[in-house]
Amino acid sequence: MVLGTPTYAVPPWLQRKVPEIAAETATGRRMPWGARQEVDFNHPAYLFHAERVIRRVVSRYASHPAVVGYQVDNEPGLYLLHNGHVFARFVEELRAEYGDVDTLNDRWGLTHWSHRLARWDELWPPDGNLVPQYDLAWRRFQARLTAEFIGWQAGIVREYARTDQFVTTCIDYARPAMDDEAVAAGLDIASANIYYAAQDGLAAGTEGSLDWPPSGTWSLYYNADRAWSTRQAPYLVTETNATSVGPAWLNQPGYDGQWRQVGWALAARGARSVQYWHWHTLHHGPEAYWGGILPHSLVPGRVYEQVAALGRDLAAAGDALDGLRPDADVAFVHSLPSKWAFEFAPPLSGVDGGPDRAAYERITSASYRGWWAAGAQARFVHGGDLSAYPVVVAAGLYVADDATLDKLRDYAVAGGHLVLGPRTGYADSDGRIRAVAAPGRLAEAAGLTYDEYANVAALPVRAAEGSPLALPPDAAGRAWVEGLRCAGATPLAVYDHPHYGRWPAVTTVACGAGRITYVGTVPSPALAEAVARWATPAPVSGFPATDPVHVTSAGLADGRRAWFLHNWSASAATVPVPFDAVDLLTGEPISGELELGEWDVRVLTSR
Amino acid sequence: MVLGTPTYAVPPWLQRKVPEIAAETATGRRMPWGARQEVDFNHPAYLFHAERVIRRVVSRYASHPAVVGYQVDNEPGLYLLHNGHVFARFVEELRAEYGDVDTLNDRWGLTHWSHRLARWDELWPPDGNLVPQYDLAWRRFQARLTAEFIGWQAGIVREYARTDQFVTTCIDYARPAMDDEAVAAGLDIASANIYYAAQDGLAAGTEGSLDWPPSGTWSLYYNADRAWSTRQAPYLVTETNATSVGPAWLNQPGYDGQWRQVGWALAARGARSVQYWHWHTLHHGPEAYWGGILPHSLVPGRVYEQVAALGRDLAAAGDALDGLRPDADVAFVHSLPSKWAFEFAPPLSGVDGGPDRAAYERITSASYRGWWAAGAQARFVHGGDLSAYPVVVAAGLYVADDATLDKLRDYAVAGGHLVLGPRTGYADSDGRIRAVAAPGRLAEAAGLTYDEYANVAALPVRAAEGSPLALPPDAAGRAWVEGLRCAGATPLAVYDHPHYGRWPAVTTVACGAGRITYVGTVPSPALAEAVARWATPAPVSGFPATDPVHVTSAGLADGRRAWFLHNWSASAATVPVPFDAVDLLTGEPISGELELGEWDVRVLTSR
Amino acid sequence: MVLGTPTYAVPPWLQRKVPEIAAETATGRRMPWGARQEVDFNHPAYLFHAERVIRRVVSRYASHPAVVGYQVDNEPGLYLLHNGHVFARFVEELRAEYGDVDTLNDRWGLTHWSHRLARWDELWPPDGNLVPQYDLAWRRFQARLTAEFIGWQAGIVREYARTDQFVTTCIDYARPAMDDEAVAAGLDIASANIYYAAQDGLAAGTEGSLDWPPSGTWSLYYNADRAWSTRQAPYLVTETNATSVGPAWLNQPGYDGQWRQVGWALAARGARSVQYWHWHTLHHGPEAYWGGILPHSLVPGRVYEQVAALGRDLAAAGDALDGLRPDADVAFVHSLPSKWAFEFAPPLSGVDGGPDRAAYERITSASYRGWWAAGAQARFVHGGDLSAYPVVVAAGLYVADDATLDKLRDYAVAGGHLVLGPRTGYADSDGRIRAVAAPGRLAEAAGLTYDEYANVAALPVRAAEGSPLALPPDAAGRAWVEGLRCAGATPLAVYDHPHYGRWPAVTTVACGAGRITYVGTVPSPALAEAVARWATPAPVSGFPATDPVHVTSAGLADGRRAWFLHNWSASAATVPVPFDAVDLLTGEPISGELELGEWDVRVLTSR
Repeated sequence: MVLGTPTYAVPPWLQRKVPEIAAETATGRRMPWGARQEVDFNHPAYLFHAERVIRRVVSRYASHPAVVGYQVDNEPGLYLLHNGHVFARFVEELRAEYGDVDTLNDRWGLTHWSHRLARWDELWPPDGNLVPQYDLAWRRFQARLTAEFIGWQAGIVREYARTDQFVTTCIDYARPAMDDEAVAAGLDIASANIYYAAQDGLAAGTEGSLDWPPSGTWSLYYNADRAWSTRQAPYLVTETNATSVGPAWLNQPGYDGQWRQVGWALAARGARSVQYWHWHTLHHGPEAYWGGILPHSLVPGRVYEQVAALGRDLAAAGDALDGLRPDADVAFVHSLPSKWAFEFAPPLSGVDGGPDRAAYERITSASYRGWWAAGAQARFVHGGDLSAYPVVVAAGLYVADDATLDKLRDYAVAGGHLVLGPRTGYADSDGRIRAVAAPGRLAEAAGLTYDEYANVAALPVRAAEGSPLALPPDAAGRAWVEGLRCAGATPLAVYDHPHYGRWPAVTTVACGAGRITYVGTVPSPALAEAVARWATPAPVSGFPATDPVHVTSAGLADGRRAWFLHNWSASAATVPVPFDAVDLLTGEPISGELELGEWDVRVLTSR
Repeated sequence: MVLGTPTYAVPPWLQRKVPEIAAETATGRRMPWGARQEVDFNHPAYLFHAERVIRRVVSRYASHPAVVGYQVDNEPGLYLLHNGHVFARFVEELRAEYGDVDTLNDRWGLTHWSHRLARWDELWPPDGNLVPQYDLAWRRFQARLTAEFIGWQAGIVREYARTDQFVTTCIDYARPAMDDEAVAAGLDIASANIYYAAQDGLAAGTEGSLDWPPSGTWSLYYNADRAWSTRQAPYLVTETNATSVGPAWLNQPGYDGQWRQVGWALAARGARSVQYWHWHTLHHGPEAYWGGILPHSLVPGRVYEQVAALGRDLAAAGDALDGLRPDADVAFVHSLPSKWAFEFAPPLSGVDGGPDRAAYERITSASYRGWWAAGAQARFVHGGDLSAYPVVVAAGLYVADDATLDKLRDYAVAGGHLVLGPRTGYADSDGRIRAVAAPGRLAEAAGLTYDEYANVAALPVRAAEGSPLALPPDAAGRAWVEGLRCAGATPLAVYDHPHYGRWPAVTTVACGAGRITYVGTVPSPALAEAVARWATPAPVSGFPATDPVHVTSAGLADGRRAWFLHNWSASAATVPVPFDAVDLLTGEPISGELELGEWDVRVLTSR
Repeated sequence: MVLGTPTYAVPPWLQRKVPEIAAETATGRRMPWGARQEVDFNHPAYLFHAERVIRRVVSRYASHPAVVGYQVDNEPGLYLLHNGHVFARFVEELRAEYGDVDTLNDRWGLTHWSHRLARWDELWPPDGNLVPQYDLAWRRFQARLTAEFIGWQAGIVREYARTDQFVTTCIDYARPAMDDEAVAAGLDIASANIYYAAQDGLAAGTEGSLDWPPSGTWSLYYNADRAWSTRQAPYLVTETNATSVGPAWLNQPGYDGQWRQVGWALAARGARSVQYWHWHTLHHGPEAYWGGILPHSLVPGRVYEQVAALGRDLAAAGDALDGLRPDADVAFVHSLPSKWAFEFAPPLSGVDGGPDRAAYERITSASYRGWWAAGAQARFVHGGDLSAYPVVVAAGLYVADDATLDKLRDYAVAGGHLVLGPRTGYADSDGRIRAVAAPGRLAEAAGLTYDEYANVAALPVRAAEGSPLALPPDAAGRAWVEGLRCAGATPLAVYDHPHYGRWPAVTTVACGAGRITYVGTVPSPALAEAVARWATPAPVSGFPATDPVHVTSAGLADGRRAWFLHNWSASAATVPVPFDAVDLLTGEPISGELELGEWDVRVLTSR
């Protein structure tokens, strides 16, 4: 049992006693009570009571043999807190970081619209702010508050925890004030809540998106790989679909087999546990249609049986998977500051022509989906050593300091294949746009520059003469076009358009011992897959990429390798097995070909 | 003349004098002045002035011979009032109902998210509330306030009214704080404002909906039958389309003939009067494009002539229709608490994937539309004796106590045909979900259970083997699917789908001397009509159901029967007349066949 | 150089010092700081500081030889200001205008909903107002405030300005509190910010609209002609597209050639300057993706070269265009009060069935587009002498006093061709609907009346028997239909519909020495063009109207005439030149035919 701290739910008596702990999501506007997490968790009165209940609960149960670890709070970072003392602290931290207002005026460009500050107390609250550089600092600050709060709780818990107990918190990666790396730095293991659109949302052909609930088979892997990246280590899945995800009007219980598939997919990508939210569906309250393993009748039924089948699998697997390390063909550089910058001023528009606040996810998932379709496996990185990866993708890496960009270049120089995507390197770490031809410090190495960019619906893309890309007819650039001018780079694909045709969509150039490829658009699935198949012709899994069967692989602690074969479809499918393998669950030797049933998964290991 | 009380419009001098009577639609946020009904009608200062003007107006004119009755206020229940003293009274009433906070904690499930109360004054205001059980109590409370207010006014008026004068109020059934039965309980007659989409919105083939303005011919009957149900008695139509309904950008004056058609349709369903809003179109103010009988020029024109034609009809009919009682083939159990529960947490999504706050109307109208298309006539009931009805439909009856469900079962046992629809019996009267396999107390009698449900776009439905249902190709289940497991019931229709195909869409089972049929989805018009034609093969009107001609019937005071034949189309149509009848208006004998002109209506009686 | 006053951007120190100068866009709700123009410019404390900085800046630089003029403030009239003292002044001005509350009660129709005032201080603030007549007065008042403020600034500047310097302000015509005529009355020259949708938004076949950014080639001319109308004189274009218009997710840099085309189009319609917003794209702040002539790299590129090409053209043209006066075939009567009235209570619905707040623009642009397609040139007028125009169009002229309507009739009597469109003459100058058959005072002269009107999607329209209109199959009436009853007028076009077919869509009648034509619907492009071609068979330019080449013409100071030939398409096109002309830039004689390249423009003069 994982023991939780109840700090995300303020009881009514405390709401009445200290009403000023209410979260303000706009300056001076207290959130009404009645939900959860509607609290300013930085307020001393809240912290006083939170500490008291944490100490009481944890000290009471820490020695209980069933308690294997602790989860502090729940999906933190839900709100950007505008409470007065929080804003005051923000100003204090700006003062500490920038030193004087003139530096801030300069770094944020406050001359525009007469926004220059003469004194620190002149900074306007965030409510009316339109300056992107201000907003980026505000988002970073809010994420720090969340990490600090979770670290503070972890510290208290550790005063009581046994050495064999872990401390974690469950992360909803979409929370606005969530820096997963910072939050998990103070924990023993990361935990992720990974939900997904079941039914046809898991079918291999579904384009999908990261919008709620994430859809497209690749999105499940995207989120699992994000969870690994939080600590570059195994993690817990603390919540996933039991029967259906909320709200009340969204009920799509999985098809038979999908629970086994998802469970194995998560395990294959490094999950050490798969927990369902939740055990039984509730009969009251806001979450009564977030379906549990047991239905409202509390009588085990189809879902229970589906989950039990996965349980039997895992029991059969025993400890074979302990120490599993998922394989990776490609590393994606993930950047929360870039995501935040795009939420404020997105480069893409949505279907109605308004801002697409999810532009960052749209850009990064377009690449991820391509490699996934190509049978490749991915790692997300936030920095660190890149040399282990044959390919590194940096798409939408809008906010980046010089060192980060130099490191990417150095990776290519040292022999890696760097694949750049739209907007990378455009702004510095304050979100200031670089006053040089894009992609800034990467331009020379990438053998190109661009000054123009445009929003488009979709432009057909065809292979350039002599290009190694195999482009099907539906290869296209979408949403965004950068006007790439080659200065050394070779076009791989070009737009089919009277105006945009002057610019290549994809280029490549040798760089030191390696190579830099540039994708100047949001690639359609077909274009993204073509680029990925060219860049990663032989995925590490050793299996061919053939819809609807997708294979991931991992190294096991004993040196063996494991393969996870999923048939993401409603029809049986046959897949060639290029190795002499053995079925992990049955011990049956496998070679030649393997047939998978509908929505089926098989786990093989090397002999 | 019906004399009104002016209490829905607070004059500016009173707004200035007692600003605290402003309605608060969120706690502490007063509505700005400038409209009407923007008042907290529970406030003593308002009541003081309201009483004064009521007494002054009514005492002055009560003895006037032209005054036949009184209408107190106008379309009450427009806002949910959050004023502080109103909320305080809500808490007091909860205390009176539940006795102690522990009972409330239990009945509302407040353990979830640490919402348990220790004292009554800890209850949070409704603004931030997410607990459905709380909201349901709040909605019931608000509806009680409206009924109390109207009853208070009626009491004052009755101090002056003559015995030959009636007291009523006009009801907009869509008002959020409106329980029509409770409001009308203190009145002499119910009054309904029944608007509709004219032009093609009245064409027989229009699927329509109850959204503003209600469209589809059936919707006119739905609303008229709702008006009858308020007191299960004749009613006044206090407002209906004159030229067009507001707002300014919605002008669709009827086609020639539609005024006669609608007038006769309302009369046929029990209306004792048809009044138009209003006499002439206004030249100022917010309602200047709510078209009257006279246009802005004040010169009688097409609309005047259309209304006059109806007047000539009614004059010709004389008092023949006095005491008319509309026929009914089927009774629909209507449940305001279920409607309110679905407004808070709807089981259906709208076209954009968001909540469909009109889910209750969508579910109930899907059934009603089916019976209407089958030529059947309907009654709405809120309880009472069901034995008179060959068929009783309970669809979307989500909030229901045990006695209500038992009564439905007993109706079937006694020989009735009970047709259940989605969500019926799922929650108790507090809105708590029953912890048993659905449909709860009805499961055994219905010969089935279900634990799973899902949202779908549309699933094709075909007849089960040996089914008596005649299903056309466009028979489908929409929006919602319940995973029905037969335990005695026989499938009548099944989904055509690899996953959902395991569950029937429609089942039936004998129950005592009667029968229970279950429809586990929101039926498409074709599916609903097929079920209705099977359940009601011989409508009481005696006329076949053939688009575009629809016939309703009624009993008259002298024992004769009347038939109302409508051609809801722009082309002439012929209908077989299975009786020897007489034209009520011309005295002409009718038999064999009758041709109706475009948008025509004929009224026949038995000889 | 044009010297600006910085009054639209309040510096943070002043925000802190006098927080009460914040604009209130709802009563009591101060706008948060962080943008610009978020100020109550009527507040004495603001005016004190504004005056100080204006005097300091202007006195310092007035004598500088580079300063050719002044721009006071920037795009004023952004908000409707609800600050308490502003509302108090509104009431005072009403008192001055109406004299006593009974007159106001009568003119605004306040008897409805008990809104009659007994004292002036009983008037409710605008937040909750639903009375259209109130709103119209409020809008007029707000526009007066803007004009007063700009006039006040101009007065201060003039204390310092040299006689050879001009004073202007740049106008965004879409601002809610902007009466361009009133604002520019106190200035030396009008200035307009004219943006447009580049790329295919400029293609001749694009239907387009005036929504942001305005699209359809005609919309560029519409806005340029509006700018001329502000003072019926040449004007400055103070801002137009450099690379792209904001926001961040809307980037559509023009195709090659479009800068020259637009520059010449503006010059041809009377612009004395074309200035780009702005010189280089910014690296910070809210406008960092409003693209300048230089890109973020600050290195001149394609856009710079495109603009430079226009510059070379203008240099070659020298002073030949000084004193240019654009030709006009037709005058459109433009009415801001009608626009404001339609924003409050629009007669048209949008695609979702909700109000189309841009109904005025939709109605007027439907006519304008028709004449533009017919090769005609336009002038907007707000009154003044109409006798110079062969055709005058008054469409959507909802708010109009008797004198205005009589003047239109007199124009026709005197020999003009008056073309009336929907809603004209329906209300008086207070926005009160006239209690006579529409179109009110124009009915007799127009030979028709109507009492009914309806909203429709689209109705096909065909020529009436003997009609001179050449109607293609896609001629249609859209959105609005008036039920015209001829009383002397002859139908030119009729609806093809069982109900609406009884009413003509277009009628005409001789009137004195002239003619009145009535269009009772929002014409589709094809219908509008057909009416225009009939009314203006020989445009003054002397060139035929043939897509994609459009020609405008002008008189030059020296008596010569100039023609501006635009090929609004991506393919070369040939146009017959019916005169012996000369190329203004090359001096080359032109006759017979001229080929224009893609997105090309040629300027010819008479020899």
